[in-house]
Amino acid sequence: MSKLKTQEHTPVTLSESLIGSLKEITGADNVFYDTESLEAYSHDETEDLSFPPQVVVKPDSTEQVSAILKLASAENIPVTPRGAGTGLSGGCLPLHGGIALSLERMNRILEIDTTNFICVTEPGVIVQTLQEAIEEKNLFYPVDPASRGSCFIGGNVAENSGGPRAVKYGVTKDFVLGLTAVLPNGDIIKTGGKLYKDVTGYNLTQTLVGSEGTLAVITEILLKLIPLPSLHLMLMIPFPSLEQAAKTVSAIMSAGIDPSALEFMERDAIIASREQLGTHIDYDDAAAHLLIELDGNNQDLIDERAEKIGEIAMAHEALDVLLAESKQKQEELWNIRRSLSEAVKSRSVYKEEDTVVPRDKIPELLSRIKELCARWKIASVCYGHAGDGNIHVNLLKDDLPDDVWNNGLDTMIRELFAIVVDLGGSLTGEHGVGYSQREYISIMKTPAELAIMKRVKDAFDPQGILNPGKIFPTE
Amino acid sequence: MSKLKTQEHTPVTLSESLIGSLKEITGADNVFYDTESLEAYSHDETEDLSFPPQVVVKPDSTEQVSAILKLASAENIPVTPRGAGTGLSGGCLPLHGGIALSLERMNRILEIDTTNFICVTEPGVIVQTLQEAIEEKNLFYPVDPASRGSCFIGGNVAENSGGPRAVKYGVTKDFVLGLTAVLPNGDIIKTGGKLYKDVTGYNLTQTLVGSEGTLAVITEILLKLIPLPSLHLMLMIPFPSLEQAAKTVSAIMSAGIDPSALEFMERDAIIASREQLGTHIDYDDAAAHLLIELDGNNQDLIDERAEKIGEIAMAHEALDVLLAESKQKQEELWNIRRSLSEAVKSRSVYKEEDTVVPRDKIPELLSRIKELCARWKIASVCYGHAGDGNIHVNLLKDDLPDDVWNNGLDTMIRELFAIVVDLGGSLTGEHGVGYSQREYISIMKTPAELAIMKRVKDAFDPQGILNPGKIFPTE
Repeated sequence: MSKLKTQEHTPVTLSESLIGSLKEITGADNVFYDTESLEAYSHDETEDLSFPPQVVVKPDSTEQVSAILKLASAENIPVTPRGAGTGLSGGCLPLHGGIALSLERMNRILEIDTTNFICVTEPGVIVQTLQEAIEEKNLFYPVDPASRGSCFIGGNVAENSGGPRAVKYGVTKDFVLGLTAVLPNGDIIKTGGKLYKDVTGYNLTQTLVGSEGTLAVITEILLKLIPLPSLHLMLMIPFPSLEQAAKTVSAIMSAGIDPSALEFMERDAIIASREQLGTHIDYDDAAAHLLIELDGNNQDLIDERAEKIGEIAMAHEALDVLLAESKQKQEELWNIRRSLSEAVKSRSVYKEEDTVVPRDKIPELLSRIKELCARWKIASVCYGHAGDGNIHVNLLKDDLPDDVWNNGLDTMIRELFAIVVDLGGSLTGEHGVGYSQREYISIMKTPAELAIMKRVKDAFDPQGILNPGKIFPTE
Repeated sequence: MSKLKTQEHTPVTLSESLIGSLKEITGADNVFYDTESLEAYSHDETEDLSFPPQVVVKPDSTEQVSAILKLASAENIPVTPRGAGTGLSGGCLPLHGGIALSLERMNRILEIDTTNFICVTEPGVIVQTLQEAIEEKNLFYPVDPASRGSCFIGGNVAENSGGPRAVKYGVTKDFVLGLTAVLPNGDIIKTGGKLYKDVTGYNLTQTLVGSEGTLAVITEILLKLIPLPSLHLMLMIPFPSLEQAAKTVSAIMSAGIDPSALEFMERDAIIASREQLGTHIDYDDAAAHLLIELDGNNQDLIDERAEKIGEIAMAHEALDVLLAESKQKQEELWNIRRSLSEAVKSRSVYKEEDTVVPRDKIPELLSRIKELCARWKIASVCYGHAGDGNIHVNLLKDDLPDDVWNNGLDTMIRELFAIVVDLGGSLTGEHGVGYSQREYISIMKTPAELAIMKRVKDAFDPQGILNPGKIFPTE
């Protein structure tokens, strides 16, 4: 068994016969190699990256995925699995060319089991579509990244996606009870089951969740569901300083209140959103806002918690506490929050970091980031899931000369991550390492830690054909 | 690097110089090889098994554990980590002799962080001790296996322990945010952190939780804590048939009620407990009881749910619905539940199975088990965490002739597991595979699934020195 040896940017050549074999597996209609298709599958939502595959294949079943991987193993061809292409770390980019394996046709919800509270789904279902189908049965799958209207559940599982509701309900991994997955050699395995407890053998489910498509291709997912809360209340709270907003986050959580979202947005993010949406936002000149959601089934309990939050916020110099009780007003607030990423990024060339720290370190994280940015004269806009300590830091080029930006950015990011690690944090809370963060991982992980991860990778993918070039730094 | 080659029951011989080196690492006071010590560390709570080590070592720090494993790797000596020895699958038995590595001296609670709701602890802390220290801070670590008064948190992490409260709060894995662990080669790694979101690299935390001490030795644990609920209510509900009790379980859960315990106990278990404790139990002639706990912070909500449970139970022919509102009465009920295991097992030679099925399959599981046992003329007593579908099946020899028991048991267990697998279940919900279930694992896992697990084992432990002989079937 030989190891894959290709050069990034210098893709392997695929033979006519390989293309023919792929067409036999999926039908000729599901194999694409025209320039337009290759371009379309060359990027995701991560900055300005493009790595085209040589061929795009769209299988329709676990068996077809298995046949493709058997073929790729035999021919030593790189295979890069792909969901909806909404990732923010370049996880689905075919760095080494080869086969882009799109799961988009495997888009069936197989079962919503209302007795055991479990959903069985294929990976290519859009998260919002899945959530709505589940909510129709009065059940709830709460993990909703900002891209929920377009991202696939399979990509969420591969990346262990988070989102605002993680603060109360947890991230994707906390809902995955089992998987069907295809190993790089084509072997099909099942992990877990419709079971809330299961310790027969190693927990391969959780080894695969968040492995960024580098260990296996996920073709079926069992998700835990919970009862749908019937009541929601939202609060929008403007603050005169980042620090007071950040301290309020920790105070709310330490008080044992369990908001279903606790989002932080600094002024420039709010302004970018206001301009993008053309909407009015109260206190849009405040230094920062907290957006807080409470959910449950008892109005008194929700009101009680809202009142407590209001008190905590006012004790931290909040400018006001605005309530959104109607569904419509709540949707407006969520729209603001969900628009931030695109709005901020449309302002300038940018680089986004997905920092996470223990939540009581957020005030220090923010002040040290602002200090760092001032020193580098690089603008930054921060927002994110503050209840989890997960702050997205957008570094913006604005009018900075190209050479200053290009020469400085890498060093500045290393300094930024050094701060994060110093605060007991991690490089990425929910976006993944993928391609865009791989050179930084050794800031955080020791050689011994990287070595054991590499051995796990080799255990699953001895040839190194599955999503090559991701997670680990180049040598 | 050579692979470990020893025979179970024919342990390797340890040289004087190796013993000397161990004494240098931990101090001579913490190395034991007298017959009494070797016997004491030869068994756990799993049936009647005994595999003595050649030496017992009690390190006091991560660095000492690392030094021991470096030595063992160099000398190719088996090392079996051990918590409190309360396991139910023989996970800590030194099958191949060698070094028993006891974590009992690493028994310090390092931090209870009341701001971030995280506890940092060494592995040798007794779970109940840990829980009580946490509850003093008005926080909650809910995972409480029946052995909580004696088992170690490290063993709970190694086995991914469950217990009654898993039905609401989840199992051990759902609370582990990070680990310090020593690999078989002596490398020290840290995984996770004081972070509720973290996707930098593979999820080694969850690869290690539940790996039964076969991949690494866990020396420090970060646990998520939650706010302590202030109110509890318990219900004891007798039923005239197993079937009606089992159907009630599924009905309660499907109604979206979230009991913090939903335990099933059949008549013979109740009777064994009554005799063991010398206590009066109402309706002790009922075919089965459900023991249900509700917790929370709002009495009205608890009462409302209790009423709903009562209605569901009565609709399933419950004989009565008994409430336990006082702390004392509740403790009495928990005592009954926690006594079952020992009480049932004191009746006869036994073999315990730890079956788990989708919770709506419990009625069918129970009826098929009873049918199977009748056919084999083997008595069975069932009880367990029915809310999770996790039923402990105690097979009792009673007056059966030795040869009938000895010759039949293995085949009967295979038939039992075939039923479990047919119902979409798993061989073990919380006890682990360890030694006692390893020959059955291939009833459930395919050759491809076992092969990838074996490759994961090899990635962590290429020499095969760490807890050898566990999980995988003999060839």
